[in-house]
Amino acid sequence: MNHRVQFPLGAADIPRAWYNIAADLPDLAPPRHPASGRAITPDDLLAIVPEELARQELTLDREVAIPEPVRQLYARWRPSPLIRAHGLERSLGTPARIYYKYEGVSPTGSHKPNTAIAQAYYNKQAGITKLATETGAGQWGSSLALAGALFELDVSVYMVRLSFDQKPYRQMLMQTYGARCVASPSTETETGRAILARDPDSPGSLGIASSEAVEVAANDPTTNYACGSVLNHVLLHQTVIGQEAIAQFALADDYPDVVVGCAGGGSNLGGLAFPFLGEQLRGGKPVHVIAAEPASCPSMTRGTLAYDFGDTAGFTPLLRMYTLGHGFIPPPLHAGGLRYHGMAPLVSEAVAQGLIDPVAVTQTACFAAGVRFARTEGIVPAPESTHAVEVAIREALRCREEGIGRTILFGLSGHGHFDLSAYEDYLSGTLRDGEFDPGKMTAALAELPDV
Amino acid sequence: MNHRVQFPLGAADIPRAWYNIAADLPDLAPPRHPASGRAITPDDLLAIVPEELARQELTLDREVAIPEPVRQLYARWRPSPLIRAHGLERSLGTPARIYYKYEGVSPTGSHKPNTAIAQAYYNKQAGITKLATETGAGQWGSSLALAGALFELDVSVYMVRLSFDQKPYRQMLMQTYGARCVASPSTETETGRAILARDPDSPGSLGIASSEAVEVAANDPTTNYACGSVLNHVLLHQTVIGQEAIAQFALADDYPDVVVGCAGGGSNLGGLAFPFLGEQLRGGKPVHVIAAEPASCPSMTRGTLAYDFGDTAGFTPLLRMYTLGHGFIPPPLHAGGLRYHGMAPLVSEAVAQGLIDPVAVTQTACFAAGVRFARTEGIVPAPESTHAVEVAIREALRCREEGIGRTILFGLSGHGHFDLSAYEDYLSGTLRDGEFDPGKMTAALAELPDV
Repeated sequence: MNHRVQFPLGAADIPRAWYNIAADLPDLAPPRHPASGRAITPDDLLAIVPEELARQELTLDREVAIPEPVRQLYARWRPSPLIRAHGLERSLGTPARIYYKYEGVSPTGSHKPNTAIAQAYYNKQAGITKLATETGAGQWGSSLALAGALFELDVSVYMVRLSFDQKPYRQMLMQTYGARCVASPSTETETGRAILARDPDSPGSLGIASSEAVEVAANDPTTNYACGSVLNHVLLHQTVIGQEAIAQFALADDYPDVVVGCAGGGSNLGGLAFPFLGEQLRGGKPVHVIAAEPASCPSMTRGTLAYDFGDTAGFTPLLRMYTLGHGFIPPPLHAGGLRYHGMAPLVSEAVAQGLIDPVAVTQTACFAAGVRFARTEGIVPAPESTHAVEVAIREALRCREEGIGRTILFGLSGHGHFDLSAYEDYLSGTLRDGEFDPGKMTAALAELPDV
Repeated sequence: MNHRVQFPLGAADIPRAWYNIAADLPDLAPPRHPASGRAITPDDLLAIVPEELARQELTLDREVAIPEPVRQLYARWRPSPLIRAHGLERSLGTPARIYYKYEGVSPTGSHKPNTAIAQAYYNKQAGITKLATETGAGQWGSSLALAGALFELDVSVYMVRLSFDQKPYRQMLMQTYGARCVASPSTETETGRAILARDPDSPGSLGIASSEAVEVAANDPTTNYACGSVLNHVLLHQTVIGQEAIAQFALADDYPDVVVGCAGGGSNLGGLAFPFLGEQLRGGKPVHVIAAEPASCPSMTRGTLAYDFGDTAGFTPLLRMYTLGHGFIPPPLHAGGLRYHGMAPLVSEAVAQGLIDPVAVTQTACFAAGVRFARTEGIVPAPESTHAVEVAIREALRCREEGIGRTILFGLSGHGHFDLSAYEDYLSGTLRDGEFDPGKMTAALAELPDV
C-alpha cells in the first residue's frame, strides 16, 4: 500500500510572474526575418499575434507579470500537485526519491491551458475575435478551445490528420467547447491544398498544421494565430509549473538532482525545467535536466542546430533550433504532441550549452513504462508523458545499480484518458515503433534556409 | 472573463472520519434477510464482504475513523476543489451564487475512488485476493480497477452491455489497470446465462450486473464483492465530499441554501448532502437538498417505497428503498451510472422523511446544460453530473425570477472525457430521450418480494 504525500499550496501561492530564462541564458540567437535575414522586431509579429505577446516573444526581462484575470483562471486547477511516487519507487526497488508534477488536473487534462488562457486573454484585450491554431494529439487544440469558450473567441483548430483519425474524442471535446476542428492537411488553405496535391494520403504533421493556421491568421485581420509550443512566450507561460515545483520541494524539504520532461516542441520541458535552471544559472544548486524525445522523431539527438522555419511551408520567422528539417514528416506515433521537426529555440540553446541532456526513447518502451506507472501510481499517463516516465525509471534504476538515492523529478504533463486505444494496442501486442529514416532527414536538411 | 475562487484546503484538512447519517436519521428500516425476513446481522454479509465493511453497513456510530493509509491515498487528489461558478452565473443573469464541488480531479475522473480505495484496503487487510463488481458507465469499475492495482488485488468487472458498447475507452482504462472487464449479461454466471436465454440482445442493467458479481463472490471464498453505490458503507465513504465542502464554505464565508446532486444509486448525492443534512438534523442551518434523477429511470419520483432486492436476480439482502421493481430494465441512457431500478436506503429514507426533494429531468435537457457549463466554466461534465447541472440551473433561474440571491451548491461528480460521443450525438441533434414505460414498472412492482 502506498503512502503518498501531495505537497499542496493554496491559490495564493500561484506565481505572480512568469520566469523568462532568456534573461539568464547568454548568447541567445534572435529569431530572423525569413526574407531579409535581419533580427526580427515585435512589429514583424503583429500580423499574427497581439502586441503584448510580440513583446513577450522578444523580451529579455527576467519576470513578466501574470495578469490577475489569468491567475484567477489558473486558480481553477493550480497549483497542480507535486506527488511522491512511493508506489513506483517500491516497484523498482530503487533508493531514489521520485516525484512527479501532475498537470492532468486541468480541465483538458494537460499543461496546455497554462498558455492557452494567457494567449486568449491578451487577444481578447487586443480586440481580436478569432484564433487559428494547429494541434497534434489534441491537447493543445482542446485547451485553446477551452480558452476560446471562456473568453468568447471563435477558435479554428487544424489537427494533424494522423491524430484526427486516432483520437476522435479530442475532436468532440473541441466541438463541445464550440471550436471548429479540421483535419490537416486541409483544403481550406493553399498550404494544405499543395500538400494534398503531392500526397493525398499525407498523415500531416505539426509543421504542416502550423502553416495552415499561420496562413489563415496572416490573411485575415480579425484572426490571430495562437501557438501551442516552440515560441518563447509559450515556454514563458508554462514556467508556472517549475516555479510551483520549487515552492513544493521547499515544503517537502527536498530538491531534485535530476529533472526529466518529455519534449516535442519544448513547452512542457521548458515550463518545468527553466525555473530550476534559472536557479542554477544564478548560482543555485545545479540540476541534471534530461529531455526525453521519441526515437522516431529525434530532433535533439539526431538533428542539426541551425536556423529553420517553425512550420513546413516557411511562414514563420527563422528560429535557431535543433531541427530535422522543416520538410521532415515524422513517422506515425501515438505521442502526437511529440511529432515535430524542430525544438524550441530556448530549449535548443540550453541543449547546445550543455544545460539540458537529450535522450531518445522508443514508443513501446514508453508504453511499458506508462502501464507500470498506471498500476503503481494510479494515473494513466498521456503517451507524450510516458517518455518522461520511461527516462525517470531509467534514472531510478541507475540509482539502484549505483546504490545512490538521488531525488528525481519528472513532469507528468497530462493524463491518457483520450489515448486509451494506444494502450489497448500496446497491451494486445500490436503497437509498433515508428522507424526514423535518416535519409529523409538528410533530404529535409538540404532544404534548410540560407541565413 | 471569469473571476473564480477555488477554496483550497491542504491534505491535512482531509476529514479523519466518515460521517454516518444513520446515527441521526430516526426510524431507519433495517435490511432484511431474503429468506427469513429477519433483520440481517453483520455475519449474514461475510460471504461477500470483509468483517469491517459488514460492521460499517449496519453501524449506528456517527463517525467511522478513516484508516491512515486510505487518507494518504485520498491526499493524491483530495481535498477536491470547491469552485464558484462565476461564468455560469453571468450566463444565466442570476443573483444566485453557484458553487460546485468537483470530483473529476481523481485519477479516474469521478467520485468513485473515495469508496473504491477504502473497500480495496479493507479487503486486502482481510486477506482477500480477488474482487468482483458491476459497473454502469464505467466510473465505478475503473475506480475499483485503480484500487485493485494499488492494493494488488485481481478485479473482475461486469459492465452493463449498453455502456460496454457505448464507452470502449472505459474498458481500456480498466484493462490498463490490469482488471478484467466483461459485458453483462455474460455467459460466466447462471444469472447472465438465464437472462441471455430469455433476451439474447439484453442491454443489461446495473441490477443484472450486480447479480453476476454477487454470484461470483458468493461461490468463491477468495473473491469478495465490492459495491459502487446503494449500500450504507458506500455512502458512508463518500461523505468526505460534503465534509470538505462544509469546511470550504467556512473559508468562503458562505453556506448553501440549496444542495443538488445527481442520483442513480445515491452515493454521490449522499456523499455530498448527508454532512449538510447532519448539521440540519443536529439543529444547524437547514438546506434544501434536491436529488436529480433521470426521467427515464425515475425511482424516487415514480417508484414505490418498499423492501426490494438491490440486484435483479435477488441475491442481496432486502433493502427498503424507492424502487421501480428489481426486474425493471431501464431504457438506454448515456448516463449509465443512473440506470438503476432502486435508490440507496439512506437516501430513500431521507426522501420519505422530506429531507430530500427528488426531481426528474430529461437526457436532452441535461446535455444542453452540460454544454452550457462546459462553455462557461470550462469543464465538460459526465452525463450523470449534467443532471445536477440542469437542476442547479433551474434553481438559479428561479432565483432570477424571484429576485432572490440564494447560495446553490451542486456536485460535479465527474468529467465527461469518456462520454464525448454522447455530446457529439447531442450537438448533431441525434440524441433522443429514453422513454419511461409505466407498464413495465407496474409489471416489475408486481414481483416485489413479500416481507
